[in-house]
Amino acid sequence: MTQQLSPAPVTVLGMGPMGRAIAAAFLAAGHPTTVWNRTAGKAGELLARGAVQAGSPLAALGAGELVIACVIDADAVHTILDRALAESGRSRLPATTLVNLTSEGPGRTRELAARADELGLLYLDGSIMTPAAAIGTQATRVLYSGPAALFDRHRHTLSALGGAAVHLGDDPGRAASFDVALLNLFWTSIAGLMHSFALAARQDVPASALAPHAQQMAGLVADLLPGLAAEIDAGRFSGAESASLTSVAASLDHIVHTLEEAGVSPAVARAAKDAVDAAVSAGHGGDSTARLAEFLGRGDAGVVPRT
Amino acid sequence: MTQQLSPAPVTVLGMGPMGRAIAAAFLAAGHPTTVWNRTAGKAGELLARGAVQAGSPLAALGAGELVIACVIDADAVHTILDRALAESGRSRLPATTLVNLTSEGPGRTRELAARADELGLLYLDGSIMTPAAAIGTQATRVLYSGPAALFDRHRHTLSALGGAAVHLGDDPGRAASFDVALLNLFWTSIAGLMHSFALAARQDVPASALAPHAQQMAGLVADLLPGLAAEIDAGRFSGAESASLTSVAASLDHIVHTLEEAGVSPAVARAAKDAVDAAVSAGHGGDSTARLAEFLGRGDAGVVPRT
Repeated sequence: MTQQLSPAPVTVLGMGPMGRAIAAAFLAAGHPTTVWNRTAGKAGELLARGAVQAGSPLAALGAGELVIACVIDADAVHTILDRALAESGRSRLPATTLVNLTSEGPGRTRELAARADELGLLYLDGSIMTPAAAIGTQATRVLYSGPAALFDRHRHTLSALGGAAVHLGDDPGRAASFDVALLNLFWTSIAGLMHSFALAARQDVPASALAPHAQQMAGLVADLLPGLAAEIDAGRFSGAESASLTSVAASLDHIVHTLEEAGVSPAVARAAKDAVDAAVSAGHGGDSTARLAEFLGRGDAGVVPRT
Repeated sequence: MTQQLSPAPVTVLGMGPMGRAIAAAFLAAGHPTTVWNRTAGKAGELLARGAVQAGSPLAALGAGELVIACVIDADAVHTILDRALAESGRSRLPATTLVNLTSEGPGRTRELAARADELGLLYLDGSIMTPAAAIGTQATRVLYSGPAALFDRHRHTLSALGGAAVHLGDDPGRAASFDVALLNLFWTSIAGLMHSFALAARQDVPASALAPHAQQMAGLVADLLPGLAAEIDAGRFSGAESASLTSVAASLDHIVHTLEEAGVSPAVARAAKDAVDAAVSAGHGGDSTARLAEFLGRGDAGVVPRT
């Protein structure tokens, strides 16, 4: 790999909070930065710091050696490509590398990668695992997938985002597979946390009094995680040393009732309980928590109608 | 406080995995330890290590300066007290300190504390925040509530459980309030994690490949937690710097659809989405995640029927 002598020109498509943070990081690292958004007027501060606003999708694609897309979903990326194609009047787009940092499922991500290929674009997919406020700092974590050689070629430019850039493999959908699994963990945990804060408030416990203990709990989940993963991959579900699913169901029942009594929605805890109950009903009551992942991963067998 | 010269005699009621771990920790610390369980035969290994099996609930209560209850719920504690009373033929029980480490809601915990008082028992409540395997190690965390002076008197004996013992206040129900809020966070997060592992498996991603990234996510929840708590307590819900509830709803929608497509139950993520959707419908779409706790904490206003 040759060190680039001057920062490569980049384009950022999408001026939501994340797109703006990405463009700001490229500007801070000295990259000539072009920005584009479906609706104008979002990039004011970036333009003051030297970003150039592209007049059209085609101009935006043409301006970057690397074109970052950070929009609402894959459909929005397709729409940008459609508009650029219509503008060009041709069947292929100017050769550049599209780095799609838009959150989307692995299936639609692979479709988008295939289309980019048809249109003459090189394609990397990426999933940003950190909030917009972290972009440009050491706290950033981005997972990438797509051709390893292409990732290597642009690794230096992408390092402007800061922190860790992890390449997961050649399958363009792989980052999206990780992304949605991790987002599910994050938002489920945050939703649980918000219910916990609500329950505490109903019992005159301020959020800041609960917070240090809740932090310990989140840390406990992190600590238990590698052991649970090893049990799942090994198919080792003996509950001898850990809580059995039967006792987890009892805990969740206690949680649901306490939430109900306090007037806080028990729906998230109840959905968790439904999943555990289904695994217990299938004969896994004596197994450890890890069994739940195997049970849910059986496909539609794990999808139980609510009663 | 005077240092106790010899380890105080203790009793442990309940020989589930947690009760056994507690009795083992007292034995290891040199305490004369009496055990009792509703059904016999659970304490074999402990008896071999020097524990004494009480012949009845009354004998068990009488044998300990400190009597730890670690049973299924408050009803099971009441049943033990009922049996001891019937056995004694009196209206009060032998004066001792009951430390109830049974998981129960704050309301029923306060009822139990009041009844213990009527029966002449001193009462502390506690909630164990760590798995049974951690008992006796530095990883143990137990939250206590009840009279501060009583906690101080038994602090040394309770230190046999290891790790941190935190006194939260005089209200006997306070530890239970924290407990259920923390259990809700823990089991909601674990349920989310198990769904994430299942989703990953459906996309040929082994749990151990996802695990390091999932650990980062659990760590991110821990990192964000104090800031969220401060926003909630201050009633500061401007979404300028963080994800708005509208964008959280979009993320959860993406998660629900990807789970559905993969054949993994979307019920937990959907329940989280329902809660966010309800807050957005109430006009809070531009607010930050912290608003969700305030919204859910309004009481039944936050309990929305599923559509």
